[in-house]
Amino acid sequence: MKNILIFDTTLRDGSQGAGISFTVEDKLKIAKALDAFGVAYIEGGWPGSNPKDELFFNQAKKLRFANSRLTAFGSTRRKGIKASDDCSLKTIVASGAVTACIFGKSWDLHVKYALKTSNEENLKMISESVAFLKSKKMEVVFDAEHFFDGYKNNKNYSFQAVESALNAGADIICLCETNGGMLPSDIQKTVRDVVKTFPGVKFGIHTHNDSGCAVANSIVAIEEGCVMVQGTINGFGERSGNANLCSIIPGLQLKRGYKCVPAKSLQKLSELSRYVDEIANMVPNDSKPYVGKNAFAHKAGIHVSAIERNPETYEHMNPKLIGNERRILVSDLSGKSNVVSKASELAMAIHDTPEHVKKVIETVKDMENKGYQYEDADASFFLLTKKALESFKPFFSLKSYRVAVEKDACGNIVSEATVKLDIKGKEEHTVAEGEGPVNALDNCLRKALIKYYPDIKKVFLTDFKVRVVNSDANTAAKVRVLIESSDSSKSWGTVGVNENIIDASWQALTDSVEYKLLKSKK
Amino acid sequence: MKNILIFDTTLRDGSQGAGISFTVEDKLKIAKALDAFGVAYIEGGWPGSNPKDELFFNQAKKLRFANSRLTAFGSTRRKGIKASDDCSLKTIVASGAVTACIFGKSWDLHVKYALKTSNEENLKMISESVAFLKSKKMEVVFDAEHFFDGYKNNKNYSFQAVESALNAGADIICLCETNGGMLPSDIQKTVRDVVKTFPGVKFGIHTHNDSGCAVANSIVAIEEGCVMVQGTINGFGERSGNANLCSIIPGLQLKRGYKCVPAKSLQKLSELSRYVDEIANMVPNDSKPYVGKNAFAHKAGIHVSAIERNPETYEHMNPKLIGNERRILVSDLSGKSNVVSKASELAMAIHDTPEHVKKVIETVKDMENKGYQYEDADASFFLLTKKALESFKPFFSLKSYRVAVEKDACGNIVSEATVKLDIKGKEEHTVAEGEGPVNALDNCLRKALIKYYPDIKKVFLTDFKVRVVNSDANTAAKVRVLIESSDSSKSWGTVGVNENIIDASWQALTDSVEYKLLKSKK
Repeated sequence: MKNILIFDTTLRDGSQGAGISFTVEDKLKIAKALDAFGVAYIEGGWPGSNPKDELFFNQAKKLRFANSRLTAFGSTRRKGIKASDDCSLKTIVASGAVTACIFGKSWDLHVKYALKTSNEENLKMISESVAFLKSKKMEVVFDAEHFFDGYKNNKNYSFQAVESALNAGADIICLCETNGGMLPSDIQKTVRDVVKTFPGVKFGIHTHNDSGCAVANSIVAIEEGCVMVQGTINGFGERSGNANLCSIIPGLQLKRGYKCVPAKSLQKLSELSRYVDEIANMVPNDSKPYVGKNAFAHKAGIHVSAIERNPETYEHMNPKLIGNERRILVSDLSGKSNVVSKASELAMAIHDTPEHVKKVIETVKDMENKGYQYEDADASFFLLTKKALESFKPFFSLKSYRVAVEKDACGNIVSEATVKLDIKGKEEHTVAEGEGPVNALDNCLRKALIKYYPDIKKVFLTDFKVRVVNSDANTAAKVRVLIESSDSSKSWGTVGVNENIIDASWQALTDSVEYKLLKSKK
Repeated sequence: MKNILIFDTTLRDGSQGAGISFTVEDKLKIAKALDAFGVAYIEGGWPGSNPKDELFFNQAKKLRFANSRLTAFGSTRRKGIKASDDCSLKTIVASGAVTACIFGKSWDLHVKYALKTSNEENLKMISESVAFLKSKKMEVVFDAEHFFDGYKNNKNYSFQAVESALNAGADIICLCETNGGMLPSDIQKTVRDVVKTFPGVKFGIHTHNDSGCAVANSIVAIEEGCVMVQGTINGFGERSGNANLCSIIPGLQLKRGYKCVPAKSLQKLSELSRYVDEIANMVPNDSKPYVGKNAFAHKAGIHVSAIERNPETYEHMNPKLIGNERRILVSDLSGKSNVVSKASELAMAIHDTPEHVKKVIETVKDMENKGYQYEDADASFFLLTKKALESFKPFFSLKSYRVAVEKDACGNIVSEATVKLDIKGKEEHTVAEGEGPVNALDNCLRKALIKYYPDIKKVFLTDFKVRVVNSDANTAAKVRVLIESSDSSKSWGTVGVNENIIDASWQALTDSVEYKLLKSKK
């Protein structure tokens, strides 16, 4: 089983992604999680480029990682000066990192347009910078920037850049596909040639996803002989992102038998992915391979019944191996088997009693005909089955609500809601304003419930979607509202349907609250 | 330049994606856009499996596509019956599609667990089904389901399945990587062997993204000799999605010289991607390769100045080739060419006067920053340009509106709106009820306008979509409303954005009415 060095650059290249802005505290949290997960390298930042990264290294060096080597990023020395006089290189040495990763030019076009120096001076910049860091007893990874473009346009010069780093003592040469536009066969051909030309040298691969092939390109490079892969958790990074380690690691380890991280860590992969999304405050992409919420979600009825007989039929691997789980979606494309297995997924034993199954299926069909959709509304489905089985006791009942929105000639808008509820035999009559009618209703509902059910305080709305369901010319169009709620540890979806958007929203709001209360009760 | 057949299955396999639920009207719109874009095949659905898809084919066959072959999906006949007695196959024939795409088992595990029949019967199901469809003069694509797993586990049987389809007259054999777990080198090895074994046969490739390699796997298969690629716009599809045609087409055409679609169409790729997201009511993934909003976004500094000297330094291709644009994140340079081409598409000669172009661009940028989006709102865009050029005279102005929704304990809901308008110098104060608050507002607005502008009578709402746009932590979430209106001869889209859904709807409603009045005036 060949070892592959996982080099995580979420904190450096990943932080270039649009919308990502880590605090020092965020970075320390992620670094700890990466160490616990067991990556070989954690590239913490570019200490020479900004004070936040310097602060990070000050704190990080005290952490004493159990599994990972703390790595500082930087560039080769500036042109025309001594390496020992270069501030950026000196900051790397002072950072307390055990490994330095410095990038240098291996594409002559860049030497001309970006560095504006001679090809010879660039080679000196590489060798002298590497030699300086080696003299300070650091491990050195040399990032050959734009290597694949360089190879294509001037192979000879790209090889000279690699040689300059090697001759100066670089430990690992990382081939960088900086512009991200290469296709797998480009990578295959180039890496094959490089590995043959430099036998015994340790090569790494660093790719970007501009052609949609970053994961594939990384895997191809490993299969061709690279031993290190640089990437980020969830593929964070500039433009279309860096290579996604959450897809690369299970591919290499579970499908090809390479050893990237401890086997036990792999089962924490989905958790790590969600944790990093949460810290970065990014909306998780549910369709992410392996670790996404939908990665093992099944909608088609045919698929579900086959999976129940043999999971291998429609799943490429066991989701438990990477800490994910199978989900059964209920929709108008689904059959009986979806409903049954969905219910059992929600830990409800309805498949034991055929008449209950029948009742739930009939209810679902009936609701779907009315325009309800449950694939993104787990919580409403859960309540539906509870209600169909008559095991549900309502927490409150509606006496009336009223919502008003007014706009005046100056453009001022006011939204106000009043709600009258019966809660545990008492009448609660509340009023609230909001950003819009649904927000006003939501505020009003909470105001009424909170003194009876303080858990409601933790629940907040995270998404709200509306669409018209049947635009049959003859009947009034119905509106379907999907609401996503969260209590910061879990999130759940609810649905409401009505000709009236306010009432559809009311249904989804109350389902969300009832679901939370039901879960809290247990 | 080798031709590659682009087989779009957004409307069939794509509709299995979580959160996607197309109406018949949505499907027709997407089909029209795909035909205009120039894909070779549009797989519209599975007419035997649900009434919605049958309805789609009823409408779609009247459309007379200019570039695409309308394709109906289905399975091989059921076991133990004659193909000519199989309802699903008969429905394909009756659908009016010119091409049939039927899937059959090529993995013996599936024959056993999913079909529960013998290997011999499965081969008969394949050949008799293909032969039946050929006897009805249809072109037949045979989808060899789970081909790659079948090849791995029982190569001999997987080849027998292919032979059965070929001997019965199948025109194209599509190799399906149904579970999506393969890596590029699996695909390379298998396709190479298959193409060698069956010389002269046309093969297609159909992949899923469970290993994060769907795009790469499709491209590798084409490089190894496949001539058709099946995929979806934006990678819509079950679990982690199908192969994303928006990444595959530019890769094959611009980086490898294959011909997939007319060169001019490629420049509409980004627009197509956004249009389909909009219709599906999906939040666009800004980091999508090639077509995403961030695909060519650069942060200020080194990259930007190098790009200004030579774009090749940090861009893998010219974004204009696929209708995208470079974005400089600090000072946004985007928009001009889009605005000009959009305006000329709407037959407005604003590109004659540079200061007008500039003003429109500034307005569009400003509106887009506020959350407006014009891809599916041509009529609002048209009004925006008119208003920016000061050539627009309003037909009415708002003094105030008020909307109230009330629900009582018996569940009765009443929605009432009042509107006060200034129309041609007169105050009109109207009241109306409706199915919901927006319907009430709409009724009220018409009631006020109709005696001044009787043309309004013909306009009706055909679709209504709502979505939360940016939930920036610091600001209240905004809501974007998209309305589709029709006067039975034409339809048009309008947009409104506000923290308040009622006011966002009001904007879209009034835009719709103003657009109609402006068009009627001419």
